[in-house]
Amino acid sequence: MEKIAEQETAPDQAPESNLGTRERVVRAASRLMQRQGYDGTGIKQISKEAGATLGSVYHFFPGGKQELAVAAIRHGEREFAEELAGNLRSEDDPAQAVLACTRRLAESLRASDWVDGCPVTSTALGTAGRLPDIQQAAAEAFAHWRHLVFEKLHQAGIAEPDAHELAHTVISTLEGAELAAQVSRDEQPLLTAGRHLARLIDLYRAPAPTA
Amino acid sequence: MEKIAEQETAPDQAPESNLGTRERVVRAASRLMQRQGYDGTGIKQISKEAGATLGSVYHFFPGGKQELAVAAIRHGEREFAEELAGNLRSEDDPAQAVLACTRRLAESLRASDWVDGCPVTSTALGTAGRLPDIQQAAAEAFAHWRHLVFEKLHQAGIAEPDAHELAHTVISTLEGAELAAQVSRDEQPLLTAGRHLARLIDLYRAPAPTA
Repeated sequence: MEKIAEQETAPDQAPESNLGTRERVVRAASRLMQRQGYDGTGIKQISKEAGATLGSVYHFFPGGKQELAVAAIRHGEREFAEELAGNLRSEDDPAQAVLACTRRLAESLRASDWVDGCPVTSTALGTAGRLPDIQQAAAEAFAHWRHLVFEKLHQAGIAEPDAHELAHTVISTLEGAELAAQVSRDEQPLLTAGRHLARLIDLYRAPAPTA
Repeated sequence: MEKIAEQETAPDQAPESNLGTRERVVRAASRLMQRQGYDGTGIKQISKEAGATLGSVYHFFPGGKQELAVAAIRHGEREFAEELAGNLRSEDDPAQAVLACTRRLAESLRASDWVDGCPVTSTALGTAGRLPDIQQAAAEAFAHWRHLVFEKLHQAGIAEPDAHELAHTVISTLEGAELAAQVSRDEQPLLTAGRHLARLIDLYRAPAPTA
């Protein structure tokens, strides 16, 4: 059994080698489920990938793979939230900021040879009817990402109800376009979605929206 | 071993009991993979659900689960294409037609207690890096659905390049909003996406688009 001290205090961005066991296990689970889904990923593979014994995996996650999947989704949620927040901050204009998000997503998807799509979606999909904890964690992830987009839009002067609705469509469209880009191994769905989302956002910034 | 005659000629919409074995196997695979994903679905479960022996499953699909998944994706592709084409025909106005699509998707997702999302996505996701045949079948499905949307938009007078790009975003957004609706067990992502897509489409129908 490995040492399991200090894992809770390891900073999220530390090099893998300095991470505590729990954090290494969560990261490995997140990465594997991102590529292979929940059912395609076994707890033995996670333990091997994390360099942790099966005993220590079950020490941290007595609920087994299901509990680990919830932790993996929360990890993926935080990772994407940081990326999203950074991209949204990269441009003052909210339409340009969302466009920047789609460009970065396209770049990193291509860099992964089209395998690293949304970590939350691939873990949650296929389990929706069976594993409510996983579905709930995914719903919270989507809600948090929407909130980040909402804040950006609202700060830019878009009325609160419009900003809420737009945030829904921005996150839905990013998700779907990432999926389409992944399946077709092509950046176009993301880049096109970015331009359309930018036009849509601009509509709601006009002095007198017609809706 | 069951009789395996006439399965190729069974009409796609015949009652389950009248279907040939191959068609029953494909339908069972499509339905199970829609809910459980590729890795969550075993060939034994498919054979049981289809009321077919394992021998007859392998008779029709010597390539096993991978070959069956490609057939399942093509089946799901045709099923959704029919639904999409019907919804697009239900309204002359292309923006209203897309709005109608989102309403029907929301209704049928709710009716399935939020488990029957996109059959192609849930089968393909998690296999993108490993199983290129499945990824390719999913890419073809997306392309066909985009073509149906493109035709509707182009027939309504939207210029060809704009209609192509809009079709990308319509399908991406439907996919992502369906996913978000499924995960949050709520119709809102789909209904909101429908209203936004309708506004976006209307922009391109304006006499002098500014893009």
